[in-house]
Amino acid sequence: MRMYDVIVKKRDGGELTKEEIQFFVEGYTKGDIPDYQASALTMAIYFQGMTQEETATLTKAMVDSGETIDLSEIDGKKVDKHSTGGVGDKVTFIVGPLVASIGIPVAKMSGRGLGHTGGTLDKLESVKGLEIEMSKEKFIENVNKFKLAVAGQTGNLAPADKKLYALRDVTGTVNSLPLIAGSIMSKKIASGADSIVLDVKTGTGAFMKTLEDSEALAREMVNIGNNLGRKTVAVISDMNQPLGYEVGNANEIKEAAEILQGSPVEDLRTLSLEIASHMAVLAEKFPSYEDAYEALEANIENGKAFQSLRNLIEAQGGDVSMIDDLSKLPQAKYQVEVKADKDGFVSAIDAESIGVAAMYLGAGRATKDDEINHGVGITMKKKIGDSVKGGEPLVVLLSDDEQPEDSIQKVQQAYTISNEKVEKPTLIHNIIK
Amino acid sequence: MRMYDVIVKKRDGGELTKEEIQFFVEGYTKGDIPDYQASALTMAIYFQGMTQEETATLTKAMVDSGETIDLSEIDGKKVDKHSTGGVGDKVTFIVGPLVASIGIPVAKMSGRGLGHTGGTLDKLESVKGLEIEMSKEKFIENVNKFKLAVAGQTGNLAPADKKLYALRDVTGTVNSLPLIAGSIMSKKIASGADSIVLDVKTGTGAFMKTLEDSEALAREMVNIGNNLGRKTVAVISDMNQPLGYEVGNANEIKEAAEILQGSPVEDLRTLSLEIASHMAVLAEKFPSYEDAYEALEANIENGKAFQSLRNLIEAQGGDVSMIDDLSKLPQAKYQVEVKADKDGFVSAIDAESIGVAAMYLGAGRATKDDEINHGVGITMKKKIGDSVKGGEPLVVLLSDDEQPEDSIQKVQQAYTISNEKVEKPTLIHNIIK
Repeated sequence: MRMYDVIVKKRDGGELTKEEIQFFVEGYTKGDIPDYQASALTMAIYFQGMTQEETATLTKAMVDSGETIDLSEIDGKKVDKHSTGGVGDKVTFIVGPLVASIGIPVAKMSGRGLGHTGGTLDKLESVKGLEIEMSKEKFIENVNKFKLAVAGQTGNLAPADKKLYALRDVTGTVNSLPLIAGSIMSKKIASGADSIVLDVKTGTGAFMKTLEDSEALAREMVNIGNNLGRKTVAVISDMNQPLGYEVGNANEIKEAAEILQGSPVEDLRTLSLEIASHMAVLAEKFPSYEDAYEALEANIENGKAFQSLRNLIEAQGGDVSMIDDLSKLPQAKYQVEVKADKDGFVSAIDAESIGVAAMYLGAGRATKDDEINHGVGITMKKKIGDSVKGGEPLVVLLSDDEQPEDSIQKVQQAYTISNEKVEKPTLIHNIIK
Repeated sequence: MRMYDVIVKKRDGGELTKEEIQFFVEGYTKGDIPDYQASALTMAIYFQGMTQEETATLTKAMVDSGETIDLSEIDGKKVDKHSTGGVGDKVTFIVGPLVASIGIPVAKMSGRGLGHTGGTLDKLESVKGLEIEMSKEKFIENVNKFKLAVAGQTGNLAPADKKLYALRDVTGTVNSLPLIAGSIMSKKIASGADSIVLDVKTGTGAFMKTLEDSEALAREMVNIGNNLGRKTVAVISDMNQPLGYEVGNANEIKEAAEILQGSPVEDLRTLSLEIASHMAVLAEKFPSYEDAYEALEANIENGKAFQSLRNLIEAQGGDVSMIDDLSKLPQAKYQVEVKADKDGFVSAIDAESIGVAAMYLGAGRATKDDEINHGVGITMKKKIGDSVKGGEPLVVLLSDDEQPEDSIQKVQQAYTISNEKVEKPTLIHNIIK
């Protein structure tokens, strides 16, 4: 088999066979196939697409290129959750404890990565002493005992995806649905869960800006999951503004803890319960979505969900007093208000700009050597649909700098205030199974 | 400027600016832009195409990436001729002397390359002693004196094209019209002629199989030439069977010499006069195509055209007696007939297979270390439209092997004999200016 023929076949709109896809993925991972042929193939895929069968085969080949996590020693059906990423997305810290509180094991492997705020691990490390590095044995023991553990991703999962993504990133082919879907799902499948709930964000602050694109991506991923024996459900949720009111690290943990204690922040609570309910159904713990939803809500009311969060933190060596008294979490030196310059209604908030403003404050990493400042971030005071008077704060910047000019300017650019009353955006656009 | 942005712009169907194209060509030639980005861009060009403006700019940038030949010391308008390549194409050996015989300077730089038979230089070297390596001064002196010289290409012409072509060859993007056109024209333009006649072959034995594709390629090349200040005309000629009756090296020289002495081999004589006439008009030697055609025909009749060929060979140290007595040219040991197995009419000859049969005999190079055997080749006895009786020879293999089985088989596969009478194919399909 020659890579040249594989490129030409895809270029001409052909469907690649299993053998051809495996030949490419194995050869590229080993270095037998050079970057310049891989980038030509991915550009051809960008234009010609892939069938469901091809996409699933590609994903499987990328899974097979490296190690896979064996979770078989964990009792019960393991359900994983993945978000395509958005600003203020702290849903993992809510659904993990929630789902664990009804007895479903959640074995969460996460990363750090670059971004406007820290990743899951960084945010968790806002709690003093919390350790995310642990042996595989300890990880499994914790999940079996507390139904929940969050650890840094170890092992060489889907190295083909890692190598290919880095290439796509510099050759203009990140934005290909089958390749995005295969990339995400290869890592999820290598992580060993039995089923997966995907939170696919849509809107100005999401990777996918339109509902149509988000649904198409969701469909691709659900197809891959089902094709490879993982029951998969995707929730298409809104990312036309940050989720909840907190954007940062410690303040996001605080907001998540509050939700678990019954805080009524509408979008964040609703989306968390939605995702957790689908996880509960996939884990076959409840016969219906409605039953699951009810049980999960009850565990917020009766304190079991919050107790699950406490268990997680205690089991991983974190200072649980910081969760019992959220004011003990790291805090920035200054609270700087950014105010509305006129009366009206908030009609748009560019989530991306809010994220960048948080990064300027020190909440995220622009390069991998940057350090996260856990205490800084942004508290939203106004969201889309809210009325506002000139001089009222739109956000409060949690800053270690008294006059964070760049962030102030970014926030001012992010908000649009109109004279007309504006509806709140729909939170959950669609469920794709 | 970032290469990534150039790729994405073309991927999304944008028109690249002059600066962007120059940035790419210069950066890639220098090695600042890696192969994997160049192959992604060329695949994007494959799908999105290029405007006439972009294609001309690309060609100019490739010309500017290396040396250009300065022919200004040659008196008069210099006209070059280029064929996209076919089997039995010895037109250069006819039009060169023909055009020179009416006083137009022909400064021909040629290559060897791989192919079913040798390249222009290899074929010429069938004549004992003929030298194609010479100093620039000698080359120009010969052209000024005899109006004709043929030399091996020296200098580093269009290195960007060379590098890019090698990459396209292994990444599935050779077959892109603007890239093919740019590649051919960059070398022609760097070679210094004032105007160019292109012989664009069409048919089963050509790079472009359909008339539509051949015309599109011709139009691209004519546009580039005119855009860059070179008057350019393209003749679309048939390549559904070998041109003339001889395929090889010495036997092609022999057939060319015979045409110059008045041999009536219809397709070869007609196409040569056609191309030579356009060259004469471009050189502003004659006011009209008809006048040029008449003068060229006259120079065949009066012996001046043949004398031009003799001058070329003498000036470059070749044994002119071999041209005066064509039987002195290198000859193969055996003449092996391949016979028709039934009565009928020749309805198709796969030119490609005839070429491969010639290569099997030793007439061409499969790898660059192969040596050309000048005496071997194929003499066609039947062409499309001819009637044939079972047992009559279709071709004679000029072979150093008594039983060249592979070649015999290839020739048998190449011929289709039908019961119905068949028309001769149209020779000249179109002229594009």
